[in-house]
Amino acid sequence: MRLDGHTCWRRLDQADHGVLATVHPDRGVDAVPVVFAVEGTEVGRRLVVPIDAVKPKAGPRLRRLANLDLDPRCALLAEHYADDWNQLWWVRVHARAEEVEPTAELLALLAARHPQYQSPGTITSAIVLTPTAITGWSAT
Amino acid sequence: MRLDGHTCWRRLDQADHGVLATVHPDRGVDAVPVVFAVEGTEVGRRLVVPIDAVKPKAGPRLRRLANLDLDPRCALLAEHYADDWNQLWWVRVHARAEEVEPTAELLALLAARHPQYQSPGTITSAIVLTPTAITGWSAT
Repeated sequence: MRLDGHTCWRRLDQADHGVLATVHPDRGVDAVPVVFAVEGTEVGRRLVVPIDAVKPKAGPRLRRLANLDLDPRCALLAEHYADDWNQLWWVRVHARAEEVEPTAELLALLAARHPQYQSPGTITSAIVLTPTAITGWSAT
Repeated sequence: MRLDGHTCWRRLDQADHGVLATVHPDRGVDAVPVVFAVEGTEVGRRLVVPIDAVKPKAGPRLRRLANLDLDPRCALLAEHYADDWNQLWWVRVHARAEEVEPTAELLALLAARHPQYQSPGTITSAIVLTPTAITGWSAT
């Protein structure tokens, strides 16, 4: 049922997307789907969430970034749903987020993960999540 | 891009599951996959999240319930991911949550949605989410 750390990271590495939950000053919480990539090695893995110019956005400063400006604590959940509940699993990373100028390494990492990012200029910024805790669960 | 209210509710009604984000006293936020059903009519829809004895749980008092005891503000996100990003969409409901003793109507609603709940005793409690805001987005 509980997944060990190694399995959690393996599943994160294979997940196509996740849900990023942030602290919202009035609403308490916010949640938005994001793509991401795992960066680093076993001694210090981080999650990289691109801010892109590919998927249309509602406003000039994304709510997720405004929330993280005020409170960097966040959680990223990757999960699998199936009508057969024996196949359910999820992995959740609690983290502190920091917006960074994406380096060439980060851009290459994200482009390797998602072909949409292979064109230059598609990623305008990135959020790096430094994990504070990781938890995973599987039905079987 | 922005989905209207009618479309948001239709997609929630068809979604097989969502992610419930709650306020965590230390970690800021928490997020967990949940199944749910839409209850009510256009004038007053609510979301019902069952607490069940079907999917194994980690502890005696679920973290999601402990979080909601302290702060009833939450968000439920239903979303669709595809490698073709033109197919992406999500619907998010901000809400106030209240744990309730499930009525016969609620049990029937949930059993109609998920056959796993057709056996008596599978649902031990329920969280009713009263929406304060609803937002939806679609890539196309």
